[in-house]
Parts: sequence; C-alpha cells; structure tokens
Amino acid sequence: MASHCDERRRNRNMNIGFIGTGVMGKSMAGHLMAAGHRLFVYTRTKAKAAELLERGADWRDSPAELAEDCEVVISIVGYPSDVEAIYLGDGGIVEHANPGAYLIDMTTSSPSLARRIHAAAAARGVHALDAPVSGGDVGAREARLSIMVGGDRAAFEAMRPIFAAMGKNIVLQGGPGAGQHTKMSNQIAIASGMMGVCESLAYAKKAGLDPSVVLQSIESGAAGSWSLSNLGPRIIAGNFEPGFYVKHFIKDMKIALDSADEMGLELPGLALARTLYERLSDAGFAEKGTQALYKLFED
Amino acid sequence: MASHCDERRRNRNMNIGFIGTGVMGKSMAGHLMAAGHRLFVYTRTKAKAAELLERGADWRDSPAELAEDCEVVISIVGYPSDVEAIYLGDGGIVEHANPGAYLIDMTTSSPSLARRIHAAAAARGVHALDAPVSGGDVGAREARLSIMVGGDRAAFEAMRPIFAAMGKNIVLQGGPGAGQHTKMSNQIAIASGMMGVCESLAYAKKAGLDPSVVLQSIESGAAGSWSLSNLGPRIIAGNFEPGFYVKHFIKDMKIALDSADEMGLELPGLALARTLYERLSDAGFAEKGTQALYKLFED
Repeated sequence: MASHCDERRRNRNMNIGFIGTGVMGKSMAGHLMAAGHRLFVYTRTKAKAAELLERGADWRDSPAELAEDCEVVISIVGYPSDVEAIYLGDGGIVEHANPGAYLIDMTTSSPSLARRIHAAAAARGVHALDAPVSGGDVGAREARLSIMVGGDRAAFEAMRPIFAAMGKNIVLQGGPGAGQHTKMSNQIAIASGMMGVCESLAYAKKAGLDPSVVLQSIESGAAGSWSLSNLGPRIIAGNFEPGFYVKHFIKDMKIALDSADEMGLELPGLALARTLYERLSDAGFAEKGTQALYKLFED
Repeated sequence: MASHCDERRRNRNMNIGFIGTGVMGKSMAGHLMAAGHRLFVYTRTKAKAAELLERGADWRDSPAELAEDCEVVISIVGYPSDVEAIYLGDGGIVEHANPGAYLIDMTTSSPSLARRIHAAAAARGVHALDAPVSGGDVGAREARLSIMVGGDRAAFEAMRPIFAAMGKNIVLQGGPGAGQHTKMSNQIAIASGMMGVCESLAYAKKAGLDPSVVLQSIESGAAGSWSLSNLGPRIIAGNFEPGFYVKHFIKDMKIALDSADEMGLELPGLALARTLYERLSDAGFAEKGTQALYKLFED
C-alpha cells in the first residue's frame, strides 16, 4: 500500500511556477505542462512567455504573486544578480513562498548565493534546491538535460519526478550549493579544453594542413573531446553562431573564479581562458558561440 | 593482372631495420616480425632488444650497418637531437641508405627536422616519411596506433602495409613534416585539455564534492573528453603512474611551441601548460604520468 501511495504522490499534478522562459526555460516549462502539471509563468519580457500562455499556462505579474499560487517554483534566469533579486529581494520568492514549498533555481549561478537562498528559505520552512543544467537548447528541447543538484536529500527525492520531466542524468551532488559547484567544475573543464581545441586547429591551419583531415587522426584518441568533435567541425566550416554564447560563458567563468578565490584555489588555466574570452568579447564576438575563440588565433 | 601483382608486392616480406626498441618500439617491431618481415635491430641499450633478438631478429652495431642491410628503416627514439644524429649525423642513415630505400621516423619530433631529413634523403634517391603515432603503449601492443604521416603519396602508399601491421587509423596528412605537425596539433589539444581536467577536479575536491560523483554529471556532456574519462578516475584514485610521461610531454610541448614560433603563431594556452608542467617536473614528478598535473592544485 505504501508503494501505491508513494506512486500516487510522485505522479500527482502540481501547481508549478516558472520564472525565465528563454530558449532553455521555454522547453523545460513545456515538458512540465506536457506531464500534466498546472503551470504559472512570470518572466521579465512577457512576449517570451506567449507560446506557453497560448498552451494554457497562467500569467502572474511578479515573482511574489507566482510564489503565492504555487507549491513548486522553478527559475532559470540570467545572472546571479537576477537570481538574488527574485529570491531574496523585496517582494521576492522566499518571502512569499508557501510553507513547505519547493524552490528550484536552475540558473547557472553562484554556489554561495545558493547557500544563502537555502538558509533564508529554511528559516521560513521552505525547501530550496540549486539545480543548474548542461545539455544546451537541444538537451532542453529533448528533455535530455544533465541536472546537477545541491540541497537536502528529502527535497531532492520529492522533486525527482519534476527533474525527470526535463532531464536524464539527474544527480544529487551534495548539500546546498553543490549543484552550482558541479556546474562550475563542468565549465572549468570546458574553458581550458576550448583553448586546446582552438589552438590545435589554428596550429593545423597555419601549418598548411587540412584541419578536417587532422580531425580524422586526432579526434578518436587522447586529444578527443566533445568540443573537438562537436565544435571543431563548426570552426572548420567558419560557423561561429551560438550554441552557447560567449557572453554567458564569461559570466560562468567569473562565477567559477570568484568561487575558487573564496576557497583559496588558484586556477591559472581558467584565468587565462577568461582573459582570452574577454578579449574576444571586446573584439565584438560576445553574441557568438564559444567556438569563436578560434578567431583570436586567425591571421 | 595488375591487381594481382600489386597484391603480391604489398604482401612480400622485406628486410626492415628498426631503431629504438623501448616500450612502444618493441611492440611495433614485434608486429612486423609477426607479419613475416625479416627484422634488423639497433638500439642504444642492447638489453632492450633482447626479446626481439630471441625471437629471431638480427642485431646490427650501428644505424649505418642497419641501413646498408635494409630496404625499410623505421625509428622511434627519444628526442629530435637523437633523430637528427641517427639520420643526418656522421655514419647516419641517410648517408648509408640504399637507393630507393624507405626511411620512416615515427618519433614525435620536429616538423622542420622532418623536412630536412626528407630533403637530404631525396637528394640521394631515398624516400623519407615522418609518421609519429598516438595511442600509447596499449595502442602499440594491440596494433591499434593512430599513425599521422607526412611525405610523398607514392612512398606513403608503398609503406601502407607496413603501417597497417602496427596501426589502425593511418592517414597521409600532407607533404614532409605534415605528420609531425599533426602530432603537434594532437599534443596542443591535450595540453590545455589536461589543465581543464585537473583544475575541474581540484575545484570539485576543494568544494567538498565527491569528484567521482561529479564525473557522473559532467563526463558525458560538453565537458567530456578522453582525458576526463580515462585519466580523471586515475587522478581520483591517486594513481599518478605513467601512461604518458611528464618528461616526454614537456619535450613535445617544446617542439610545438618552437614550431608555432617559427610560423609566427602565439599559443598562450600551450605556453601556460608548458610552464605548469615544468613546475611539476621541477617538483619531482618528471617520471610520473601527465595526470600528475593535478598535484599542482592540491593543498
């Protein structure tokens, strides 16, 4: 009988508030509606919510109003400052959340901010999870995101069906902030890796090789990486459209460097990558994809 | 009929000289013997050739004597200075090679030196190919090396059956030096990639995460790489044995930086990786595997 009740609880439909309906958020919120939940939406630019509203989502005029109507609030917005404002600011989610509600920030944001939100929520009897994702717009569209979660295990287990509607690789990484720390580990590996990919292909080009033939020799061995196999061909084709925006990657690297600094950890590869990406952004490539780093090495 | 004759030529057994029977060379030479070729061996430390000599290989006392008895000479030695000495020095291979012979240097060495050897050989009616490999001792043992070849197409095609006895992914990358340039592209991608892997795992550890659980979240996505999936678990287990030696990687990075410098190309990621690896070597880790870079980020 217990398992029957658990099953019913897991599958029951909930009132879910969703804040931030950009490229990622729109797909993710759509999966939650498809799973049968009632969706409430708030986003800074209402036009971006139009598709969800047409599908039957309810609009709310502020994070506070949204929080008051929902048992789960999910956010995926831009910068840590946005996260701080909607959760901890005047009229913020934490202040207006119902006791026992679940707050899930899926923005890539600061681990220390995630801990502050968790503490403020806990003080009001509200659960908070940090749950950034990887997998990009395609992963969001296909509900195949990797979701890295920090927070209390009971809250994580309660929200597992919600996560499962949006992603595949769902892992509780530890207490509050651990999801964000894991996402930082992800971005740190990517940052220096992209330098390697771009320098490798720039060297090949400069040496007079055919970079696509070079890929045949190197991509299946020790030099192989997701970036080399997925972004290498775009670089070779001269395609620098995003994928993942340079400006967003710079934001993430700043969070990672600040966080490492708080822990007293030096990351020279990451620091160099950030310097190069800022140079790239200054040169007018902020709105291009991360593979545009290659541009710095071209003649 | 032509195809029958081609077939016979491709499969006929040859006198092959092999110089450098270290971990890699021993396996590679063994495959050539297994394929039916008569093997002649010279190596600086005769003890390292003992196993091949027991299996029936013939010893020669110098590169010159070896070259005089062979139609193909293959080398895989330590440093560009070694390659230069055995090919272009007094009593060197080029001077003593038979007209029409094939000289194949499989050492990871300098692209410009490869071009000089090719030119000196061509002046004597001798073919030269540069053909460095990736895949390590396991790839050598299992005849699954990736072989990156530079030189003339006819020479490459003539030697294809020889390469096929030692490797799987055999690609002519261009003219003389193109094999070495390709290997440099490989090492450049690895160098910054290893910084990313080590910094990522060091950050995870410092943040109090379980790095092996972090791998579950990040290794299948955009942060994924051969290094993360293959060397990450060794780092986590505290296993810093080689694999690929720090001291050899430093050699390769120096060649790549010198070569980039000759071409007027700046590679800041590679330059930083070399600085860090030299610091690691100075700290006593020259004989460890490349994943020991992680040690620099530990408390």
